[in-house]
Amino acid sequence: MSMLIKNGVVVTAFDEFEADILVEGGKIKAIGKELGSGADEVVDAKGMYVLPGGIDQHVHFSFDYKGSKVRGFETSNAAAAGGTTTVIEFVNQIKGKGLVDSIEDYRKSEVDGVAMVDYSFHGVITDPTPEVFNEMDKLVDAGYSTIKLFMAYKGMFFHADDDAILNALIAAKDAGVTIMVHAENADAIDVLQKRLVAEGKTEPYYHAVSRPPLVEAEATKRAIYLAQMAGAPIYIVHVSCKEAIDEIRNAYVSGIPVYGETCSHYLVLDESNLAKPNFEGAKYVCSPALRTPDHHEALWDAVDMGWLNAVSSDHCGFDWKEQKHMGRDCFTDIPNGAPGLENRLAVLWTYGVEKNKISRQKLVDIFATTPAKINGIADRKGHIAVGYDADIVIFNPEYKGVMTNETCLHNVDYSPYEGMEQIGRVEKVFLRGNQIVECGKYVGNGVKGELVKGKAYGLCYDRMEK
Amino acid sequence: MSMLIKNGVVVTAFDEFEADILVEGGKIKAIGKELGSGADEVVDAKGMYVLPGGIDQHVHFSFDYKGSKVRGFETSNAAAAGGTTTVIEFVNQIKGKGLVDSIEDYRKSEVDGVAMVDYSFHGVITDPTPEVFNEMDKLVDAGYSTIKLFMAYKGMFFHADDDAILNALIAAKDAGVTIMVHAENADAIDVLQKRLVAEGKTEPYYHAVSRPPLVEAEATKRAIYLAQMAGAPIYIVHVSCKEAIDEIRNAYVSGIPVYGETCSHYLVLDESNLAKPNFEGAKYVCSPALRTPDHHEALWDAVDMGWLNAVSSDHCGFDWKEQKHMGRDCFTDIPNGAPGLENRLAVLWTYGVEKNKISRQKLVDIFATTPAKINGIADRKGHIAVGYDADIVIFNPEYKGVMTNETCLHNVDYSPYEGMEQIGRVEKVFLRGNQIVECGKYVGNGVKGELVKGKAYGLCYDRMEK
Amino acid sequence: MSMLIKNGVVVTAFDEFEADILVEGGKIKAIGKELGSGADEVVDAKGMYVLPGGIDQHVHFSFDYKGSKVRGFETSNAAAAGGTTTVIEFVNQIKGKGLVDSIEDYRKSEVDGVAMVDYSFHGVITDPTPEVFNEMDKLVDAGYSTIKLFMAYKGMFFHADDDAILNALIAAKDAGVTIMVHAENADAIDVLQKRLVAEGKTEPYYHAVSRPPLVEAEATKRAIYLAQMAGAPIYIVHVSCKEAIDEIRNAYVSGIPVYGETCSHYLVLDESNLAKPNFEGAKYVCSPALRTPDHHEALWDAVDMGWLNAVSSDHCGFDWKEQKHMGRDCFTDIPNGAPGLENRLAVLWTYGVEKNKISRQKLVDIFATTPAKINGIADRKGHIAVGYDADIVIFNPEYKGVMTNETCLHNVDYSPYEGMEQIGRVEKVFLRGNQIVECGKYVGNGVKGELVKGKAYGLCYDRMEK
Amino acid sequence: MSMLIKNGVVVTAFDEFEADILVEGGKIKAIGKELGSGADEVVDAKGMYVLPGGIDQHVHFSFDYKGSKVRGFETSNAAAAGGTTTVIEFVNQIKGKGLVDSIEDYRKSEVDGVAMVDYSFHGVITDPTPEVFNEMDKLVDAGYSTIKLFMAYKGMFFHADDDAILNALIAAKDAGVTIMVHAENADAIDVLQKRLVAEGKTEPYYHAVSRPPLVEAEATKRAIYLAQMAGAPIYIVHVSCKEAIDEIRNAYVSGIPVYGETCSHYLVLDESNLAKPNFEGAKYVCSPALRTPDHHEALWDAVDMGWLNAVSSDHCGFDWKEQKHMGRDCFTDIPNGAPGLENRLAVLWTYGVEKNKISRQKLVDIFATTPAKINGIADRKGHIAVGYDADIVIFNPEYKGVMTNETCLHNVDYSPYEGMEQIGRVEKVFLRGNQIVECGKYVGNGVKGELVKGKAYGLCYDRMEK
Repeated sequence: MSMLIKNGVVVTAFDEFEADILVEGGKIKAIGKELGSGADEVVDAKGMYVLPGGIDQHVHFSFDYKGSKVRGFETSNAAAAGGTTTVIEFVNQIKGKGLVDSIEDYRKSEVDGVAMVDYSFHGVITDPTPEVFNEMDKLVDAGYSTIKLFMAYKGMFFHADDDAILNALIAAKDAGVTIMVHAENADAIDVLQKRLVAEGKTEPYYHAVSRPPLVEAEATKRAIYLAQMAGAPIYIVHVSCKEAIDEIRNAYVSGIPVYGETCSHYLVLDESNLAKPNFEGAKYVCSPALRTPDHHEALWDAVDMGWLNAVSSDHCGFDWKEQKHMGRDCFTDIPNGAPGLENRLAVLWTYGVEKNKISRQKLVDIFATTPAKINGIADRKGHIAVGYDADIVIFNPEYKGVMTNETCLHNVDYSPYEGMEQIGRVEKVFLRGNQIVECGKYVGNGVKGELVKGKAYGLCYDRMEK
Repeated sequence: MSMLIKNGVVVTAFDEFEADILVEGGKIKAIGKELGSGADEVVDAKGMYVLPGGIDQHVHFSFDYKGSKVRGFETSNAAAAGGTTTVIEFVNQIKGKGLVDSIEDYRKSEVDGVAMVDYSFHGVITDPTPEVFNEMDKLVDAGYSTIKLFMAYKGMFFHADDDAILNALIAAKDAGVTIMVHAENADAIDVLQKRLVAEGKTEPYYHAVSRPPLVEAEATKRAIYLAQMAGAPIYIVHVSCKEAIDEIRNAYVSGIPVYGETCSHYLVLDESNLAKPNFEGAKYVCSPALRTPDHHEALWDAVDMGWLNAVSSDHCGFDWKEQKHMGRDCFTDIPNGAPGLENRLAVLWTYGVEKNKISRQKLVDIFATTPAKINGIADRKGHIAVGYDADIVIFNPEYKGVMTNETCLHNVDYSPYEGMEQIGRVEKVFLRGNQIVECGKYVGNGVKGELVKGKAYGLCYDRMEK
Repeated sequence: MSMLIKNGVVVTAFDEFEADILVEGGKIKAIGKELGSGADEVVDAKGMYVLPGGIDQHVHFSFDYKGSKVRGFETSNAAAAGGTTTVIEFVNQIKGKGLVDSIEDYRKSEVDGVAMVDYSFHGVITDPTPEVFNEMDKLVDAGYSTIKLFMAYKGMFFHADDDAILNALIAAKDAGVTIMVHAENADAIDVLQKRLVAEGKTEPYYHAVSRPPLVEAEATKRAIYLAQMAGAPIYIVHVSCKEAIDEIRNAYVSGIPVYGETCSHYLVLDESNLAKPNFEGAKYVCSPALRTPDHHEALWDAVDMGWLNAVSSDHCGFDWKEQKHMGRDCFTDIPNGAPGLENRLAVLWTYGVEKNKISRQKLVDIFATTPAKINGIADRKGHIAVGYDADIVIFNPEYKGVMTNETCLHNVDYSPYEGMEQIGRVEKVFLRGNQIVECGKYVGNGVKGELVKGKAYGLCYDRMEK
Repeated sequence: MSMLIKNGVVVTAFDEFEADILVEGGKIKAIGKELGSGADEVVDAKGMYVLPGGIDQHVHFSFDYKGSKVRGFETSNAAAAGGTTTVIEFVNQIKGKGLVDSIEDYRKSEVDGVAMVDYSFHGVITDPTPEVFNEMDKLVDAGYSTIKLFMAYKGMFFHADDDAILNALIAAKDAGVTIMVHAENADAIDVLQKRLVAEGKTEPYYHAVSRPPLVEAEATKRAIYLAQMAGAPIYIVHVSCKEAIDEIRNAYVSGIPVYGETCSHYLVLDESNLAKPNFEGAKYVCSPALRTPDHHEALWDAVDMGWLNAVSSDHCGFDWKEQKHMGRDCFTDIPNGAPGLENRLAVLWTYGVEKNKISRQKLVDIFATTPAKINGIADRKGHIAVGYDADIVIFNPEYKGVMTNETCLHNVDYSPYEGMEQIGRVEKVFLRGNQIVECGKYVGNGVKGELVKGKAYGLCYDRMEK
């Protein structure tokens, strides 16, 4: 079974050219002119850009807040509809269990056979026992090469102290496991929250006040120092502000292997949303908090210059009506997180490429190619080249519309991007050669996602395995 | 009763000139030529430098380690013999008590009537209750305007987490109390110590390995960030390494009110001492640890450029034979600290002034004048000018000798400076006009030290009270 | 003949205290309480601050522009009226003559017996022959220890290329002569001027457009590099902008001995003045040009932090009616410079001390003490201490008024500070013990200024002669 | 006529994969598996890397020194033998002529029909008349989009003052012409040379002493400032030292579009060569001068991190026996420059890839891909992708040998790399599909190079045309 995608403009993270793509056995077999006259199927991409399918390396399908759970993998077709063909989820270590078992149990019970795009997992250390630090090689063997720890969230079971982070960095180093951190100073937030609550400042807006940029910058710098102590690389998730960018850039420029991502919402939404009346502000409660608009330019610039290496969604499917309302009385009880899996490419194209913040090459880089590297799957995913999985997005740059929750597949009762202008649209998506989107609608009935095993130290491919 | 000090060269932190000094009522009454023909007493300082008496703002006379206590104020004549006329000690908050009560109880029972030089105290928060944070104005009223917290020493009762530090900074700000921190990452040290011990590395030398410069630099930067969150100044005690200096200087240069000190031993001793055989290395166990010699130049330079503002002794009178031997089996049990109260001026002169690292003005600045400012006593102490306390050192620059524990008054069985060359010597010392040293020997029988009350925010005099 | 100044608050660059000052033989003999009951004369300074007389190290009394000369030393009583007791002037090397001869000829013919305050000179190299570079020791012996070169003013006889500057730095180094530069890129200004003129942009405002901050920053950095090549210190005159401050601070912090000053007008006036109608803008044409108001804060901060070390006037007495009108047709023909000698202290006090930008100590430092050091006269001038020249200002902090040219003694037909609020006033001034100002008015009839010989390398006293 | 290159590992600046390459009409028609069964010719690249042909953007085939000329395009087969398929040469503006005419005259008389690889040209401004600055659009239309100016070489006809550089930057900006500079302070070198010669220091080694790193760093920073004034990008050729790298990196990181290259010899040769006896040192006289070995690591790191964007040869074919001996009596008369066109790839592979300094991707990037971008020819050259010119190098990584002048085609009597180890070798080279090298030997008889026209602002493709 072969397919030929004809007449499109192929865009990679590096170049852009008119060529046909011949797909066979779910892989890209050839790229060229006048190819594959005998293909079983021909797709005309005239006037379209042909992009690699996106990798969203920061999604939550299993997170629960005090027993209340986000939407799961049964909504992963939302990824497909947004041009994302691989998602990587965070799986909490179950107390008393190892990381591999925690991930495998979850995968078998809730993901395999359910997921509608390809998938992998990050392990989250919640119980930093010696056993878990001895599990690194096993983790890599199982195909999981990334671990996350939470510097934030004092008092929560998944919070990690500096000793857990340093131990993780030391243990992970030889196995080639990349340590990721959520960098916010948990103690400082706790102090500020208690002071605000004591002053009766309990509305959603005070969520932002309780986590100013400095608490993020401090933890970012601390994580970099811990990584230096271990001699290991480090990856900072969801960077939201100038101050944290400065720490990352300064360290990187001085030769320290530090990497980071931002998320779609930090690029285009700001903290004024948190002040919306009638508890609407709760829709925008995520951590780190949305910032003032002056951070937007700094974030786009950091993405463009390469100080931040990827843009993910931090998708978190809590609904507003029930779940966000757990914090009706006080912002500290609002479940953190917002949905966005489906909007990532549209946000990057409309507010990045169309506004001249980034080139199309850079879009592909942060949307697909570098996330693939970071997670050790860059030998199959995130790029259009001979031998790669035929995860392909046919993108129509002429479309003009508006983002709305009405057409979203995520099964959440709101979208933080509601009403925002959208330019360009995913027309077709192929997952390993199988069409799963047509005219922007999910049509992948029966096409199942597969586990993608990651190799060690994708992160530092360029710098550490010269 | 009046006294005239004639023919000396007066050295202040700012200038240097030949003049006579007329003392009356324990105060400097006039400075000039041909003064005081009718003085009751005349001291000839021909060929001598006339310096203000030193302020040693970092001494331990009450510290105990697992019940084993350092030498107390009964050895404070050692300060006098070394040209120091005021000491400032750290007093731990007693669990369940406030800072003021903790200090006053200690003062009355162990200091008043015992001390042989003037004195003040820093409160150390060990029990960060709301009450203690509400005590700031009371503290200032009692004459104590500085508080210290320990970021180091995980698991010890006096260790402080970031929330205690941030709360202290916020609470102290309005009252004008200066927050000081011992900046080392307690978690990281704990991780490294456990790994070393597990590998059987238990000799004193591994003390240094377990606390590398990065653990100090990280905590220093964290403290600066916490201070920025609070909008308060911060003071870093006993800075020992280049990496921490860089953080302080970069923050200061960018306009953040951060200040710091180093100690005599970090300027001239290095970590090779910790490797001395027969447990001699234990004599040099202090925290932060002694560094490699390449840090010496960076420290002298930081002192000279003003990135570090004072040099104190961190005097800690544990003897070697009994007390240091508590850690015979493992370095983690060695009481931290070393004596040095008596050697501070000799070290600064011999290895600073004589080696052209600092000017005589800078010596006076870091030895007396700036420590007085930091502690809010600069209206009476640390300077030679009209109206100041007549705390005066007559210094003989011609003396050449060797430092040895034999002549030390600290009642400890060793000196870390044993056998080192010494140039220059304290000839006479006056405490509020009373002579307490003659020919380098303590002669102050009957002269008692007094409490010196500090004013709020001495620290930032120049920057905050323009 | 002795004099006692009683009851004032003495302010030095370092401290502040109530004391009486006893003056004898034109020198400060003693400072103290209850002094000099037998003084020939007693001055009551109750309620007044007692400051050292100012040193204005950047004045022009001999500069001429195309044959049109500024007001000379016959107007130097203006300095006295403004609290300045020593001025240091720039004397151009006469083509074919050496620096010493050029200065001495000028001094004897136009200064000795004319000057009403004390004086010294900077030599300006205009003819960089080998002879002039061999004259360094002779220059120092004659009491002149500073040389200036102009990086700006392409095509003018006093412009210096990089080779002259580097040769000067190398030659001056051993003799201890401090090299000062006017740092603006002459070529870049020339390019911009020609482009503006070609576009018909000839009004005074375009003066500022033709010399943007970057032309100053570039030349500043270049001067620093040239100094590094020579291993010599460097002094940047009249720094006017953030960008140049950044270069100076970054170099200084990294250990390079670079120093600089700003001028009163850069601290309080901005480029909008250049746009005043009816050619009024020409009054504000000076180089570097006045900047946008956002530079004011950066300049005050640089002064306060010590990145800039002095504030001078760059006094230049061209009148508006005749001399400034030489450039009626084109801004490039307007003589550069503005008067301000008389206003320096008032500007620093009113807009510095009263607005909390600087402390009184800092005011004294930048107005008197550090300028004295820079010019090697700090053993006699710029400070109140025993043995110093009795150059003393009695300053009334209660005065409130308005600056106006009407009361100025500079004999120029305008003041750039016209109409600005003034707080505080010079009440009395003493030059070497002789009163020359009373109630703000010059009363020094018959009191002549004297030459003050400077010692080598005053500039780097603190850093280089520890 | 079609050709299939089979079984090789294709290496681009971005990725690496096994694939066949189908060439037709001198272009790459397709890349894939099982391609082109019917190709006219099949080349087996089993065990080989398949790289894009190199772009050497810094070669001299027309430079003359006091009438003595380097080897010309008749030796350009040396490029081919070293894996370089396009060279870009510097052509001096002829006095009184424009840039376009100067280039076209030279091209027609000495290059067309002679060159054995493809070629383009940089114009060198030597006569900065208004006419030449008005010629920018014409230059771009003619296919030349780069101009170079020499900040170095005081007194030589091609030296440019700052006004010429600033005028060039302003003029070039709108047309999209990239300004390149040779950044050394001509005045400073002149001062140092004259001092050395006056001291009798005339041997080749003093060439290095007369041009220390600071003269390069200063001019680099000045060029960056001039570019900022113009709002234009700038490109620094042949960066040789840490200090210049620091200026470039700091500016780039702060958002200024500054780019630069280094050359092969700066990466592996050091200044000790200049001290070789019997005038052998003259072989290594080039500008900037070779540095001490500690700069090598900094240069490799700058290349790897992307602060420097390309590595060129600065090939300059002066022989030793006749031409270098012009400076037998004094180093200032030695013609500057050394041959190296043929060794660039071997140096980068042996001392870069094999020593783990750079990845194979980075090698391709600095050897071919980014040079193509800089010169606006990246739509045809420097990359292996569909539609690109079939300029292809088949590289054998197993070869081990020694570099020697014996096998060089450059017709110069020495090689600066004589006797150095070489790993890997060019086996075959194709120029637009035509084989010109076989087994490392030039076999391209009859294959002529062609002019490659460059587009405007290739340099800033990524940053300025997002």
